[in-house]
Amino acid sequence: MSKGGDVVLLDFWASPFCMRVQIALSEKGVSYEARQEDLFGGKSELLLKSNPIYQKVPVFLHNGKPLCESTVIVGYIDETWTSPPLLPPCPYGRAQARFWADYIDKKLFDAVRDVVLSKGEATEAAKKELIEILKVLEGGLGERDFFGGKAFGFADIIAIPSTCWFLAAGKLGNFQVEAEFPKISGWIKRCMHKESVAKIIPDPEKIYEFVLMMRKMQGIDQ
Amino acid sequence: MSKGGDVVLLDFWASPFCMRVQIALSEKGVSYEARQEDLFGGKSELLLKSNPIYQKVPVFLHNGKPLCESTVIVGYIDETWTSPPLLPPCPYGRAQARFWADYIDKKLFDAVRDVVLSKGEATEAAKKELIEILKVLEGGLGERDFFGGKAFGFADIIAIPSTCWFLAAGKLGNFQVEAEFPKISGWIKRCMHKESVAKIIPDPEKIYEFVLMMRKMQGIDQ
Repeated sequence: MSKGGDVVLLDFWASPFCMRVQIALSEKGVSYEARQEDLFGGKSELLLKSNPIYQKVPVFLHNGKPLCESTVIVGYIDETWTSPPLLPPCPYGRAQARFWADYIDKKLFDAVRDVVLSKGEATEAAKKELIEILKVLEGGLGERDFFGGKAFGFADIIAIPSTCWFLAAGKLGNFQVEAEFPKISGWIKRCMHKESVAKIIPDPEKIYEFVLMMRKMQGIDQ
Repeated sequence: MSKGGDVVLLDFWASPFCMRVQIALSEKGVSYEARQEDLFGGKSELLLKSNPIYQKVPVFLHNGKPLCESTVIVGYIDETWTSPPLLPPCPYGRAQARFWADYIDKKLFDAVRDVVLSKGEATEAAKKELIEILKVLEGGLGERDFFGGKAFGFADIIAIPSTCWFLAAGKLGNFQVEAEFPKISGWIKRCMHKESVAKIIPDPEKIYEFVLMMRKMQGIDQ
């Protein structure tokens, strides 16, 4: 049992939503058991019982009590294990971090997924949408090191996991995030220098292989 | 100037998102200036400058510093004017309230809008979606008085403003929320007994008239 009780994550390795929870736990130094769910063969009874509304990973169980939705879970982790804090101390800074987390949560991964799991004109439309989002994020980052300012925090944890899907999006959408968005690229590098991030984020080549398998399963590729 | 500084809301009377902010301010006893935006004639320079990403109401200005997105603003209000608290004291209760606020924010008003601003098969599909959401909310409420438990709070503030659009949804979708969802109906009545809610929520008949005007403007009705 870890500091602060029994912590279990119903997990799937390629899910950016699950990676958010794992990075938050790593930042806090909380040990936990990550149980891989078989999303294709059949979800566990515990997942279906704990998340009846969405029936999705991540599900977080703290001393048996379930929580769902990754941004809610990361907020809970920040309030339960208070050091180091993931949100700035002042209400205005906290609200700004929550604004960016909310924007990223609503937009970024959906756009990435729409690029990698489509073809033809649909891919072009999704790529256009993703580039618009990346322009907004490039502006939001500005001259700051992280979305919360000088320190890695809440909005960075919400954003960084989707970036390991950028290689697949770039290959299938024929563009390079690194070349076209220098501020985002710098921010990704800074995040990846953190051990809590580097040890959780999978190799983008593995995500690309997973995407190719998904495309075959969904009949997008032969 | 109100307690805690100069508070301005860029507002639109029929927007449930603006009503959330107004109810939160009323609960806290904060006086403020609500400036009506002309969403059809042209948005103000202040709105466009303060919310360049979404260009939408509500925009909240506290001593001139802008915040956007209603759930972010309500969270800021709760952290800035701390009494009475809108979230429960324990992290798990807070996370549950945030889960419901997030579900409601993602689903409820979009479904209501899709019912009232559509016709034919699209209205039927939107009505089916709205009824599914209301079933989930009926289950989520269970035997509790409010979404946060015994006290009116964060998730209730996020949810209640959409309910003044239910009359229009019922008339245009041919169903009655009151008859079909007794727990939701009881919860609406309990919320409307609160002065902070009753004084903000507009007459549903006025919303219905507004919807009819919007339908004409959008060419849905002749």
